[in-house]
Amino acid sequence: MNGILTGMRVVEAAAFVAAPLGGMTLAQMGADVIRIDTLGGGLDYRRWPVTEDGTSLFWCGLNKSKRSVALDLRSSAGRELAMALITAPGPDAGLFLTNFPPRGWLDHERLRARRADVIQLTLMGDRHGGSAVDYTVNARVGVPLFTGDPASEQPVNHVLPAWDLITGQMVAVGLLAAERHRRRTGEGQHVKLALQDVGLAVVNHLGFVEEARRGQPRQRHGNELFGAFGRDFATADGQHVMVVGLTGKQWRSLCEALGVQEEVDRVGAQLGLDLAQEGNRFRARRELAGIIGPRIAARPLAELAPLLDAAGVCWDRYQSIEQLATSDPECSPANPMFATIAQPGVGEMLAAGIPLDFSGLERVAPAPAPRLGEHTEQVLHELLGVPPEEFGRLHDQGIVG
Amino acid sequence: MNGILTGMRVVEAAAFVAAPLGGMTLAQMGADVIRIDTLGGGLDYRRWPVTEDGTSLFWCGLNKSKRSVALDLRSSAGRELAMALITAPGPDAGLFLTNFPPRGWLDHERLRARRADVIQLTLMGDRHGGSAVDYTVNARVGVPLFTGDPASEQPVNHVLPAWDLITGQMVAVGLLAAERHRRRTGEGQHVKLALQDVGLAVVNHLGFVEEARRGQPRQRHGNELFGAFGRDFATADGQHVMVVGLTGKQWRSLCEALGVQEEVDRVGAQLGLDLAQEGNRFRARRELAGIIGPRIAARPLAELAPLLDAAGVCWDRYQSIEQLATSDPECSPANPMFATIAQPGVGEMLAAGIPLDFSGLERVAPAPAPRLGEHTEQVLHELLGVPPEEFGRLHDQGIVG
Repeated sequence: MNGILTGMRVVEAAAFVAAPLGGMTLAQMGADVIRIDTLGGGLDYRRWPVTEDGTSLFWCGLNKSKRSVALDLRSSAGRELAMALITAPGPDAGLFLTNFPPRGWLDHERLRARRADVIQLTLMGDRHGGSAVDYTVNARVGVPLFTGDPASEQPVNHVLPAWDLITGQMVAVGLLAAERHRRRTGEGQHVKLALQDVGLAVVNHLGFVEEARRGQPRQRHGNELFGAFGRDFATADGQHVMVVGLTGKQWRSLCEALGVQEEVDRVGAQLGLDLAQEGNRFRARRELAGIIGPRIAARPLAELAPLLDAAGVCWDRYQSIEQLATSDPECSPANPMFATIAQPGVGEMLAAGIPLDFSGLERVAPAPAPRLGEHTEQVLHELLGVPPEEFGRLHDQGIVG
Repeated sequence: MNGILTGMRVVEAAAFVAAPLGGMTLAQMGADVIRIDTLGGGLDYRRWPVTEDGTSLFWCGLNKSKRSVALDLRSSAGRELAMALITAPGPDAGLFLTNFPPRGWLDHERLRARRADVIQLTLMGDRHGGSAVDYTVNARVGVPLFTGDPASEQPVNHVLPAWDLITGQMVAVGLLAAERHRRRTGEGQHVKLALQDVGLAVVNHLGFVEEARRGQPRQRHGNELFGAFGRDFATADGQHVMVVGLTGKQWRSLCEALGVQEEVDRVGAQLGLDLAQEGNRFRARRELAGIIGPRIAARPLAELAPLLDAAGVCWDRYQSIEQLATSDPECSPANPMFATIAQPGVGEMLAAGIPLDFSGLERVAPAPAPRLGEHTEQVLHELLGVPPEEFGRLHDQGIVG
């Protein structure tokens, strides 16, 4: 392993998606990420999906390539060890990531008293320290009420924890930015990030908020891409495809592939809309779908796919997760981002590494998630010089696992 | 402006969501991000939503805090200037971000011949250089077929461009990691990132792929949180709320707030399920909803909210985007992440800064997006020493705007 972050050391005490994903992002670029859990596992240790015997595929998926230290975090001795690990010396260490309340042993001032240049990133629910998770943030920022069937007024939750996933990457951004600053100035700091603020910022960035303030709140458009042409269609054999004509080139390719350019021009003329402008393609979306839909419905996918590909259309089929997992070569070791690993508690499984491909370095192969506490003795020895006999005593006292 | 990245200079030649968001993320932390567009604007310059007179709120939202340079990128003179800007000297410069094909003037070897330590990040659709956008990636990775009403088999697209947003943050991660490496080794490089790979990695990390490989593909569960208790309910006054009992503490708070603990215990005993285990709350979700739903339906939101808050329940109401935009104090300058700015072409609008709050530095206030070409003369002078009279000539020749 010789990743782009090799040499960097991060301690993580966190749970669920965003913060562990932030830590894993750094780990998959070669950083030594040491996850501390309480004995028996943290809040996410049994999170579904699980195997038949209760091993969490979720936990394994979000903690790949980390080391695991298990301590009794309810005991003061366990907390003392955790604080010592977080603030252990090293020019490229002293980075700490948590989504627990920054109180008690996680109080920034206490950690700073032990290591003046410690960098702590605390992920919170809302900026006031209140509870918020992906699902509640999503409800608040308005998106579920303009997702799904336009005929319905019921909220539609996303299944992908999008806010967590965006935030997870932002956790890595925050730690890298703070570490850069420390290398230039010697100064550590406490970085705070609220999941809810990420949601609020994004709906602002995308223009949703300003549209609404101007009295044109986003409506439900089902599976239609807003502001240009794009939507799902069914093929002759009952498959679904998503086709996109967002840019001019994409749009011309689609018309060419299906041989509908003349018909489209006629409709544009009838409606008085220049369909080279993407917004007009949205205005004319019903009429355009009326031309394109039947051409797609006339062909089975196996016939349609090469037509679309030959013309360079931006499209894909809707796959089931089973199709993806069992038959798509892009979701297999044929894609160099993936490797087959032996995951403790699970067995052989497919694991994704970091999607970033750095030309100056080999790709870091994804490593399994650790067994809980797998590295406790090793890490305590390496970072704190705890000798085997002392480790044995701590173990007998139930302080380490 | 004295952000954590002040002094860093990044040139961006890109369009749409992911790459511009990556650039904006750096800009909102204080980096000098110079966006290069062709004269008249790039592919995303008219992207909806737009104002009455066609100014893109989308473009303004994703290019805040950047500088804008407009060049005739179809002319060799314009491309020559772009290459010179990308590779201009400076210890903290030579960072380039694009989602255009890395050919011609964007060929990495050509840029490297001008500046040996240049860092280029190229965002691609798929890893083979093929076309893919958020909507097609989403179709391929299977999520739309397990989103929405369980009674339907139709795909449900997300409205939030989640893959773009995750990727946008990963763009910033990749540039920061490569810049760190360059500072330590002197070496630049070409970083490649495919939107499709981000989608594939995430569905792997979350366990969706492994579930499917084990013959238990994720089913549609509507608005229910998978693997614990959480879903939407309607209040007496027809509002919708999302309530979550993911952790033990959250679950106990919810039961306490609604006074249903005894009834819940009874149901657990009847079903033979220990409801302290999150997975069992998912197994018993219908029965639990049968207890919780009526308690929520019996109260108007104004009565329910203080009850839930007093018990520390993890919940939120489903707001419309109008409610969020016009009446939620968290989405206003009362939240220090926001400021009211004067956006050229739009007027007064609310703008979000970076959600990361670095304790060692003041928050960088969000700055408006530039007018197209607003900084062409300034940047050409600063970076390339182009004097006013030469700029005038270039302008007369239609090479700069």
